Amino acid sequence: MERVGFVGLGTMGAAMAGHLGRAGYPLTVWNRTPGRAKDLAAIGAREAATPAELGAASDVVFICVSDTPDVEAVLFGPAGVGEGLGRGGLVVDCSSISPSATRAFAARLAQAGIGYVDAPVSGGSEGAQKATLTIFAGGDDASLERARPLLEKLGSRITHFGPAGSGQAVKAVNQVMIAGVYLAVAEGLVLALKAGLDPEQVVTALGGGVAGSWILANRSGRMLANDYPLGFKTRLHLKDLGIALDLARELGVVLPQAGLAAQLENGLVARGYGDEDMSNLARPIRELSGLA
Amino acid sequence: MERVGFVGLGTMGAAMAGHLGRAGYPLTVWNRTPGRAKDLAAIGAREAATPAELGAASDVVFICVSDTPDVEAVLFGPAGVGEGLGRGGLVVDCSSISPSATRAFAARLAQAGIGYVDAPVSGGSEGAQKATLTIFAGGDDASLERARPLLEKLGSRITHFGPAGSGQAVKAVNQVMIAGVYLAVAEGLVLALKAGLDPEQVVTALGGGVAGSWILANRSGRMLANDYPLGFKTRLHLKDLGIALDLARELGVVLPQAGLAAQLENGLVARGYGDEDMSNLARPIRELSGLA
Repeated sequence: MERVGFVGLGTMGAAMAGHLGRAGYPLTVWNRTPGRAKDLAAIGAREAATPAELGAASDVVFICVSDTPDVEAVLFGPAGVGEGLGRGGLVVDCSSISPSATRAFAARLAQAGIGYVDAPVSGGSEGAQKATLTIFAGGDDASLERARPLLEKLGSRITHFGPAGSGQAVKAVNQVMIAGVYLAVAEGLVLALKAGLDPEQVVTALGGGVAGSWILANRSGRMLANDYPLGFKTRLHLKDLGIALDLARELGVVLPQAGLAAQLENGLVARGYGDEDMSNLARPIRELSGLA
Repeated sequence: MERVGFVGLGTMGAAMAGHLGRAGYPLTVWNRTPGRAKDLAAIGAREAATPAELGAASDVVFICVSDTPDVEAVLFGPAGVGEGLGRGGLVVDCSSISPSATRAFAARLAQAGIGYVDAPVSGGSEGAQKATLTIFAGGDDASLERARPLLEKLGSRITHFGPAGSGQAVKAVNQVMIAGVYLAVAEGLVLALKAGLDPEQVVTALGGGVAGSWILANRSGRMLANDYPLGFKTRLHLKDLGIALDLARELGVVLPQAGLAAQLENGLVARGYGDEDMSNLARPIRELSGLA
């Protein structure tokens, strides 16, 4: 059975590592901030002192950290995974990071005989806890097939989109689309409120037609109440949207709506709303329209 | 049985008038451009020489024309419906026009003892032909209940939102929301194409999650093929979006995304793409991103 290492024990990572440990994989964990490994120790996980030590004790290393520089530091920094994981190892990165950096990381590890799968996820903390994540995977076929039984412990819908970086590109597409739909729903609802309509009647009437969306069905209530419990944090979506806009610049793609959403989210994060659910994109539309 | 008049025999109106005539209502019709009444004559409809003559022969007058000034001319212009329809009559306007003008029309007709229902529809020519339209209704309760059995010949989902103008306001909200979702899907798909992803695989993977929408499920194929058969014409959506943006200005509502969509549609109409389906909002995103 593969020996698994797991780097990054935040809300997502801790839940995902737990599923792998409980499935019987020998598990070593590491987190930048100490004190996150206690629950996992209770199911038999060993805590490594450094990513390098974790790498040396593992066949497959999962990473679930915040952003591109964090993945780079974990892999290639001092005492990084790359100093410990040997030829024949596999890295599975579940973080949401830059597709082009992902290609570079995969190429660099390939020179050391280490495989790479990018496997960013969708479904939030609830999906991580229930192991119902949607997983967007990139990498060569052999690496993907090796990772698949482990990924199946984390989510039910795993799609392989192509070479390394493909999974991250799909995640970027997802974040671009949801930004626009959140904004579309927010604008429509604020217009409905100011027009004196019963907004819940509007949501019901429009939800079954061309305007129907998951976000209209599931997030309009928060926008109407102007109250945004989690969910998915605005500051994390803004980070992901930054990755998507960087990708768009690299590829020469023009995304006016995603750019607009990023600007509005800049304002939300700066004003201290970054830890709210991202349905708070309705906040600036409400405020600019004179709704408290 | 109510004697019904029907003004406006375009693709939508002709189909709707046909349902009313076949349901047994004595039917008089009028169209600004002659020659549209032949099919309806075959089911027993009489063609009036003017809207005034149609009004004099009717208890309930339906209107299904293009824009606010057209409804105003039909009702209050020379030889208009108002010159023929007597006290106790009812006007049902199925056009998509200005909510505030609708309130003014209703008030003016009320002074003549004539009721008014605004009943803009959603569902397109297919919905009109199959009598499966979604109907957004505004007006006082008595007028609405009088119109309801006739509206039930045209659509299955009829929602009464409030006083005259409410139906038009809901239609405006709908057009704002769909503008944003079309643009969101277009931006995401163009990014996917330029990133070298298999776009149909992306549509499938994202469609079941937070990014899911009717438009992603049903209109992404057109955007990927860059081919836009009807559907719903861009120039009509732009007309409706103009009404929504006027309403927003009246109410002090800020709609940055709807404004952006309207600007892009201005360009599409000016370049001769106004008769395509409005999923051609993907055209400018494709072109600006170097996709033919």
